[in-house]
Amino acid sequence: MNFCPNSWNKLFTLLSKAPGLVRLGLASSVSPSSSASTSTSSAMDELGTLKTKLCIIGSGPAAHTSAIYAARAELKPILFEGWMANDIAPGGQLTTTSDVENFPGFPEGILGIELMDRCRSQSLRFGTQIFTETVSKVDFSAKPFKVFSDSKTVEADSVIVATGAVAKRLIFTGSGEAPDGFWNRGISACAVCDGAAPIFRNKPLAVIGGGDSAMEEANFLTKYGSLVYIIHRRDTFRASRIMQSRAMSNPKIKVIWNSAVVEAFGDENNRKLLGGLKVKNLVSGEASDLTVSGLFFAIGHEPAIKFLDGQLELDSDGYVVTKPGTSLTECPWCFCCWGCPGQEV
Amino acid sequence: MNFCPNSWNKLFTLLSKAPGLVRLGLASSVSPSSSASTSTSSAMDELGTLKTKLCIIGSGPAAHTSAIYAARAELKPILFEGWMANDIAPGGQLTTTSDVENFPGFPEGILGIELMDRCRSQSLRFGTQIFTETVSKVDFSAKPFKVFSDSKTVEADSVIVATGAVAKRLIFTGSGEAPDGFWNRGISACAVCDGAAPIFRNKPLAVIGGGDSAMEEANFLTKYGSLVYIIHRRDTFRASRIMQSRAMSNPKIKVIWNSAVVEAFGDENNRKLLGGLKVKNLVSGEASDLTVSGLFFAIGHEPAIKFLDGQLELDSDGYVVTKPGTSLTECPWCFCCWGCPGQEV
Repeated sequence: MNFCPNSWNKLFTLLSKAPGLVRLGLASSVSPSSSASTSTSSAMDELGTLKTKLCIIGSGPAAHTSAIYAARAELKPILFEGWMANDIAPGGQLTTTSDVENFPGFPEGILGIELMDRCRSQSLRFGTQIFTETVSKVDFSAKPFKVFSDSKTVEADSVIVATGAVAKRLIFTGSGEAPDGFWNRGISACAVCDGAAPIFRNKPLAVIGGGDSAMEEANFLTKYGSLVYIIHRRDTFRASRIMQSRAMSNPKIKVIWNSAVVEAFGDENNRKLLGGLKVKNLVSGEASDLTVSGLFFAIGHEPAIKFLDGQLELDSDGYVVTKPGTSLTECPWCFCCWGCPGQEV
Repeated sequence: MNFCPNSWNKLFTLLSKAPGLVRLGLASSVSPSSSASTSTSSAMDELGTLKTKLCIIGSGPAAHTSAIYAARAELKPILFEGWMANDIAPGGQLTTTSDVENFPGFPEGILGIELMDRCRSQSLRFGTQIFTETVSKVDFSAKPFKVFSDSKTVEADSVIVATGAVAKRLIFTGSGEAPDGFWNRGISACAVCDGAAPIFRNKPLAVIGGGDSAMEEANFLTKYGSLVYIIHRRDTFRASRIMQSRAMSNPKIKVIWNSAVVEAFGDENNRKLLGGLKVKNLVSGEASDLTVSGLFFAIGHEPAIKFLDGQLELDSDGYVVTKPGTSLTECPWCFCCWGCPGQEV
């Protein structure tokens, strides 16, 4: 998986457009009641509560870019990076990948985990206070906002939600991590991120899904693969008509209807890499082998926002609603910048 | 000067939202007439014209990020980085600065020129063809679009304009580069980029300007400086009322009306750094010395778009009009992502 630009897109909008947050700092607009935080920001008060001008929830590129800018603007942010939040280590989805090739500034590529380590160091350098705890609950009903983890309560004049999303994956024999599965060794959940990898060049590939993302990813992959199968459970797509017709008219795309992948197996010449799939026809019940070197899940993302418990408005895909082109939510001083929401593209 | 996020903001919007440009590649939507470019992209034809799917004009972070993504998507882009375009070396405004602290991934900071060298190498690595020539003219009236430099003509199915803008600077004794002036040694054109530098901490600072940017930058600088002067030529500001009142009510801001800086001089203890300004009252004609460690121009930016010669619609500040939150211009397949437009914030 490589770096997904969407997180920065919205984040930089936030940083450049949010009224006063970074450019002016919060000093000019925080209420007098919260001025305690200006003297010794994030100091523990007598009730064991930490106070801060800004609390950032998340640990990926969006969260740390927020922290770098906010800390340089003297907001002394507190950042909750989580403890295996969404089953991912602090640093977010990039920590689950190997080389990142498309992050500007690293011509030879950089390991995802190393990139995030560097971003984290940068946040710390400018005075961000980082807690390796997962946020369990928030209270945005009144200011200061409250952010709770198992052991801490933070009162914040503003909050940035940058918890990202997790690409949905299917589970079947061979779909997991090494040594038993081919995740990141042929199986991916982001064609745009990973499609350009050498192992996919001029090889048959497969996409699982039936929405717009699946159509786009299949089209995109035809640039690299010799042939791209779209494997879909049903006999119709839910993708929009134009996206369907683009995919269906692409001579390098072939659709396998009414079917599901039940197993992934290794390549004959290199057992470590994906070599093919066992595909079951859900109508006839028959299973057959399909030779592919790549399998891409395009079945959506799951936003990581359970802790919000409905306190910010969500769209039909479960993402926090923001003013288009910005990170402004319906709640003033609550900002939201997402990770890689495949559905939005 | 540090990295300005606006360029990436719009760029990532482009990359994630532009219909088909990167996600699908152009293959699915280019007209048959331009299919020649698909076989040997950017090959010279019999008329000495280069053909490409995508021509990128610019050399800063936005241009190279475009190139990295487009090249990885097999668009084989041609990039004109210019030859001292806008009096700046290839790499853009970041090449005129020293340490960049706020670019994520470089916890110890990185020299602006080194950062841009790395981005350039990355563009090249994935197959971008770079010409060190300045674009003199374009023709967007029909497809393929034409892009001209002194020695080359490029026919492109799509164009990304990422030429950025240049912050306006005033010229007076001591305003230039070392060894005679204090540019980058106390004088800057970007408070958000440079305000956090140690040389400005708890020192008196000055901002020149009278618009919204000047008010914002002055407010922002009060976080660092002991006192911030706004020096303005006239006896009224053109800034919006709310921005004026924020600045005027800030106890750390003092306005010096009807005045212009006529000279910058060095610090008594460190002659290499700015120590003060000679300020002339334009009504009385009297000049006086003002002790400051920082001077920030906030007098606007000049978009670098002369070569467009009116072929894309401009707003009142001279920037190309784009659909809000995206890089789509009125001309399909012409995209525009800006550098640091102070006016927009």
